[in-house]
Amino acid sequence: MTEERPIDRTGRHGPTIRDVARLAGVSIGTASKALNANGRLKQETRDKVQLVAREIGYRPNDMAQSLHRTRSMTVGVLSTDSFGRFTLPIFQALEEQFADRGIAIFMCNATDDPERERQHLDQLLGKRIDGLVVTARRADKRPPVGPLPPGLPVIYVYSQPDDDSALSLISDEAGGSRLAVEHLRQVGCRRLAHITGPERFEAVLERKRGFHEALALEQFEHPGYYLSGKWSEAWGRDAVAALFDGVAEAQRPDGLFCGNDQIARGAAEALRDRGIDVPGQVAIVGFDNWNVMTDAARPQLTSIDMNLSALGHEAGRLLVDMIGGNTHSGIRRLPCTLVVRQSTRR
Amino acid sequence: MTEERPIDRTGRHGPTIRDVARLAGVSIGTASKALNANGRLKQETRDKVQLVAREIGYRPNDMAQSLHRTRSMTVGVLSTDSFGRFTLPIFQALEEQFADRGIAIFMCNATDDPERERQHLDQLLGKRIDGLVVTARRADKRPPVGPLPPGLPVIYVYSQPDDDSALSLISDEAGGSRLAVEHLRQVGCRRLAHITGPERFEAVLERKRGFHEALALEQFEHPGYYLSGKWSEAWGRDAVAALFDGVAEAQRPDGLFCGNDQIARGAAEALRDRGIDVPGQVAIVGFDNWNVMTDAARPQLTSIDMNLSALGHEAGRLLVDMIGGNTHSGIRRLPCTLVVRQSTRR
Repeated sequence: MTEERPIDRTGRHGPTIRDVARLAGVSIGTASKALNANGRLKQETRDKVQLVAREIGYRPNDMAQSLHRTRSMTVGVLSTDSFGRFTLPIFQALEEQFADRGIAIFMCNATDDPERERQHLDQLLGKRIDGLVVTARRADKRPPVGPLPPGLPVIYVYSQPDDDSALSLISDEAGGSRLAVEHLRQVGCRRLAHITGPERFEAVLERKRGFHEALALEQFEHPGYYLSGKWSEAWGRDAVAALFDGVAEAQRPDGLFCGNDQIARGAAEALRDRGIDVPGQVAIVGFDNWNVMTDAARPQLTSIDMNLSALGHEAGRLLVDMIGGNTHSGIRRLPCTLVVRQSTRR
Repeated sequence: MTEERPIDRTGRHGPTIRDVARLAGVSIGTASKALNANGRLKQETRDKVQLVAREIGYRPNDMAQSLHRTRSMTVGVLSTDSFGRFTLPIFQALEEQFADRGIAIFMCNATDDPERERQHLDQLLGKRIDGLVVTARRADKRPPVGPLPPGLPVIYVYSQPDDDSALSLISDEAGGSRLAVEHLRQVGCRRLAHITGPERFEAVLERKRGFHEALALEQFEHPGYYLSGKWSEAWGRDAVAALFDGVAEAQRPDGLFCGNDQIARGAAEALRDRGIDVPGQVAIVGFDNWNVMTDAARPQLTSIDMNLSALGHEAGRLLVDMIGGNTHSGIRRLPCTLVVRQSTRR
């Protein structure tokens, strides 16, 4: 077997960490810590070493280094569903958190295929990742990924494993529903309807639970309508037909809380078609705060924001902390926010 | 300085490549080639070795390996803008292409910040990537990334550098416009309007060029209206007001070609508000074939698809070929496709 030698793509042997340490006036160990963003150092020491390293054009050979230390300075992000609208803000936030610390991200997409997931995990473990983030399209329960080597930091984001010792970061969707119901009450609604997606989604069940809990706490004259269907504008239109056509004025809802912004937009259009004024006669709150929908709808939609970007940032910070040796576990629910627009401004 | 020893996360010394070679009845060199997906081998030999490797649970230490060969089995994907709707299908296709070959992807987001881009490049080069894919939000000209080591395979996807020797894969957007105009002619339109986004986008200029070229070739009674504005539904509504309100019937367009599906949807809604039938009185073609818009619009929208997924697959194949030692350069424009729905079905 002939071994091929690595190509030195830079075409030169550049400055070493010894040069960096000497010029910065620190030990090699300190220079290493400063450049690898690990260990405890004064910020000014870290800054000085990094400045020197940049000035003399020092570039570490990360792979050679990683054989001599415990960190590869890489993490894996495994999406168990395709990358989509919900994964993107999470990924962008993770990317910012890790990039600032010199950690590179391996991205893998398992598209809900367990065999694919296993292959990706094998590959990531072969690359000696320092930590793993698992994301999903919707916050549905899933079996934990694995088998994983003991001690590998793992965090589930917008995704819940059937494993109590795992760390999982999700949005407080029931809390989001409560924000919506309280807001509709405040703008004077007395009869609410919740028009939402299919019940096979954990998110639908959570939002439904929050809706009913909030209804019970507030003063409403009606126990609340609940309609489960699809995640589409067409379903929003159909649901309005069911709630309004041929229904006596006194029985019609005057506030709609919709499971996503597409349903909310479809509902707003269907009311417009019927000459029913939004927000004058019916107020509408959506979910997701997806500006493509909220801003184009007539009127623009009040919506619940799951703050997925904040979720991603928090996940990045926690994973770095776990890589540093600390442990975290359990489910953490981050709060949603209400974003008010014309559809509830009376 | 104390050197930390790497943690053996598997907690055992597993089977080696010698075991794989012995059990598969091949030389170690052949086993290595089969497992690293490089070199020329019969497919059945490759399959046999990989089967044995899987059966006995062989897992290479990729990083140790990469010091002894020319490939790290990693590529970098650098988005020079945020990850968005246009980057996603490209990324998913790249991921499939590379995952099938055991190549892992480092994802970086430079968010149009040159300093961030330089940091990411440094990091990727430190990881000894085998190749680099550069994507952008829109097919705008940009300076080439770099400096890069000579010989590193690079491919620009949905992105054009100011460098004739670079390889760039983009959609044939002018060709997409021609498809739209020919289709509107075929369904009987005689007076077209092109309602599109801001002219600072290269895509707008390309689509405009294709629109005028196609108008010149087909038999129309009108030279064509052209309105440049925003990438929004609101702009589609405003453009319809400008083209139809107070305009004599004989001067109004009977076919709209819109620069994206959001503009097309806004236009369809504005016509609906005015009691003008789509497609009966006015036919509409959008651009992007974004199903969130095309399927929710009333009527559903005919649209031009840029086939970004095909673009990503082709980019993945070409980069693998370049990593294998072949060279490719120049701009390649892949064809768009017309997807017909109700908005042009007369």
